[in-house]
Amino acid sequence: MELRPERIGRRLIHNGAIVDIYQDRMVLPDGTEENYDFIKHKGAAAVIPVMDDGRIIMVRQYRNAIDQYTLEIPAGGLNGADEPTKIAAHRELEEETGYYADLNDVEFLLTLYTTVAFCNEKIDIYLARNLRKTQQHLDDDEFIDVSLHTIDELTQMVRDGKIVDAKTIAGLMTYRAMLP
Amino acid sequence: MELRPERIGRRLIHNGAIVDIYQDRMVLPDGTEENYDFIKHKGAAAVIPVMDDGRIIMVRQYRNAIDQYTLEIPAGGLNGADEPTKIAAHRELEEETGYYADLNDVEFLLTLYTTVAFCNEKIDIYLARNLRKTQQHLDDDEFIDVSLHTIDELTQMVRDGKIVDAKTIAGLMTYRAMLP
Repeated sequence: MELRPERIGRRLIHNGAIVDIYQDRMVLPDGTEENYDFIKHKGAAAVIPVMDDGRIIMVRQYRNAIDQYTLEIPAGGLNGADEPTKIAAHRELEEETGYYADLNDVEFLLTLYTTVAFCNEKIDIYLARNLRKTQQHLDDDEFIDVSLHTIDELTQMVRDGKIVDAKTIAGLMTYRAMLP
Repeated sequence: MELRPERIGRRLIHNGAIVDIYQDRMVLPDGTEENYDFIKHKGAAAVIPVMDDGRIIMVRQYRNAIDQYTLEIPAGGLNGADEPTKIAAHRELEEETGYYADLNDVEFLLTLYTTVAFCNEKIDIYLARNLRKTQQHLDDDEFIDVSLHTIDELTQMVRDGKIVDAKTIAGLMTYRAMLP
């Protein structure tokens, strides 16, 4: 057995709009007890849409939590915790960008957890290729601008602080590391 | 003016151990109202410690929120929202790894927000070089194993799903993109 805090209780504090808030009671190896925050999220999917010429489709939207517009890869929460993330990525691609890919052209890239110290939000990130233009289908509260960028432009935007969203940086830079 | 939801209220739900939970009241451009979750975090710093031979110092610890051990770059919350992130990164480096760098050898790499849909957690990630061995100074609830890996090993671990922490993937893969 390795030394680590053990959870001895979990209490629901609040059911939020997209996350539920819990207070965990932990006992440390020395016997003292502490409260930990636990934020429960149902999971999400994201997609890096790669055009035939190599450019990547990005979305820009206002994010209330940070009071900023952000440039991100398309992403969205699962329709229930049981929805396969590939299906969600495939759906969010067309809804947010107005580009469609066959499900066969949606390929798994990586899994990440956004903030492991207090939240279980897990995002599976996919690549989508052989895209064709259809049209956006945005949710009522989504207002999204679409733009196309080369991976070199996007890398420079990460370095310049113009892309700040963690899933977007992790996904794009991992994709870049795979390129020949 | 661009179309976007406007916040018309923010109500505190709960003061947590490391985050505070709020419910935001938003009005959409069509006039309808919705609640958004807002999780307030004081900010954090992380550091990629690069040894003279190029290997990177990683930390392994148990994460209650995802019920898993994770391999991560060293990181920690700010000692108050006013602490400069470079000072925090410098401190966490020695506390978590037992390696020390002069403050002059701690260089800014990038800023990210961990999960922009509902949380304002911002992490500044630094590189540290010219490391020398001292000793760990862990918090009471920290139990951390230290290991050294090349960037190629770490890239493969991201691809294999052995590294899943978003700040770690974003930091390492951005560092990799900068290498000659």
